Amino acid sequence: MNVAVVTVGDELLAGRTTDTNATWLCERLADRGATVERVTTVPDRIAAIARVVNEYRAEYDAVIVTGGLGPTHDDVTMAGIAAALGRSLEEHEEALAWLEEDGYSRAELTEGTAALPEGARALHNDVGVAPGATLEGVYVLPGVPTEMRAMFESIKSEFSGTTTHLVEVVADEPESALLDRLAEVQDRFDVSVGSYPGESVRLTVESTDEEIAEAAAAWLREHVETA
Amino acid sequence: MNVAVVTVGDELLAGRTTDTNATWLCERLADRGATVERVTTVPDRIAAIARVVNEYRAEYDAVIVTGGLGPTHDDVTMAGIAAALGRSLEEHEEALAWLEEDGYSRAELTEGTAALPEGARALHNDVGVAPGATLEGVYVLPGVPTEMRAMFESIKSEFSGTTTHLVEVVADEPESALLDRLAEVQDRFDVSVGSYPGESVRLTVESTDEEIAEAAAAWLREHVETA
Repeated sequence: MNVAVVTVGDELLAGRTTDTNATWLCERLADRGATVERVTTVPDRIAAIARVVNEYRAEYDAVIVTGGLGPTHDDVTMAGIAAALGRSLEEHEEALAWLEEDGYSRAELTEGTAALPEGARALHNDVGVAPGATLEGVYVLPGVPTEMRAMFESIKSEFSGTTTHLVEVVADEPESALLDRLAEVQDRFDVSVGSYPGESVRLTVESTDEEIAEAAAAWLREHVETA
Repeated sequence: MNVAVVTVGDELLAGRTTDTNATWLCERLADRGATVERVTTVPDRIAAIARVVNEYRAEYDAVIVTGGLGPTHDDVTMAGIAAALGRSLEEHEEALAWLEEDGYSRAELTEGTAALPEGARALHNDVGVAPGATLEGVYVLPGVPTEMRAMFESIKSEFSGTTTHLVEVVADEPESALLDRLAEVQDRFDVSVGSYPGESVRLTVESTDEEIAEAAAAWLREHVETA
């Protein structure tokens, strides 16, 4: 299945925070065989969130949104999702009950932490306060990494696909010198090949069949100078 | 000015690499007063690159694209930019000359490292091989972080805006308890306020006027329990 990840937050766009949530989600989704087609960071603005979520929802099987949940004025993600789906925001009874269990009174909660798009299923926050939500293929998770990770664990079974096997070979030749071998390994084996230059060149071969990936990597190790 | 950042690479979408280039660019652009409106990661596919670049080019003042430059089959960024702008890819004489200075022969270079969209200005790669390019508000930089950073230094004067001053206050109260003070500081001072919960709650106040930002932060420090 194809998935888009949307991370919400002015602090990400200002470079004050590195988007580790996106990387973590991409890795977990790849482990489950799902393919991430887009990762996009948008500001804390309802219209920006609604527009991107609507576009991706039309195109991909699922959209995971993280960040911007909670009681403060800059927490507008649920409003953005509601706008995208043409729903109202409503206090969610189950989510309110969870917050009361956490020791918050209903009077304190009028600021909207438990307000979810109408018809959403609430997702419990096992390690924090703000609940998540899911509806129509959109999953809304908190931005605090520990909370996001715990909540993803509770929904991960909804993401699946054909897992691939990736084997890495580190080459000790310039990337431009490797072109003939990179072409040949793709002719010989049914694999996707990646080439990532840096101090040395990391080559990756990837296949849904582990034996084919290993055979292609073994061929590369024989035909390429390795570090 | 409003800017979009596009990072290209299957390895980013698979979570094998954290997108530190995007964070670095966002921080540098913020330092210069430019506002980043979107950061998007797309796969190594010509159509995906072309579509996103075209959308952002229509909407923002500049688009910075990183990754997918070089000689291998998965380096398709220049082709994506050319498709977005309706240009052909052509060997760029100045870029070819740079590569020859680096010791590559013209025969070796047929794989397209020096092929840039027609009419582009080539950007020299001071610490690597693959040249970058710019045309029509689109800037194309390498994906290797050292190369990307050096190349950005050579174009940074083209990005500007009104710089803002941001002051951080770390609160030792639950976020939900802070709502009244967060509302009041925004009433009293002309500042943008951010609230980022975690172990403690990081509050940020931001203004184009440094004195106002400092005064608002001082007010918060007086009225909020700090860590």
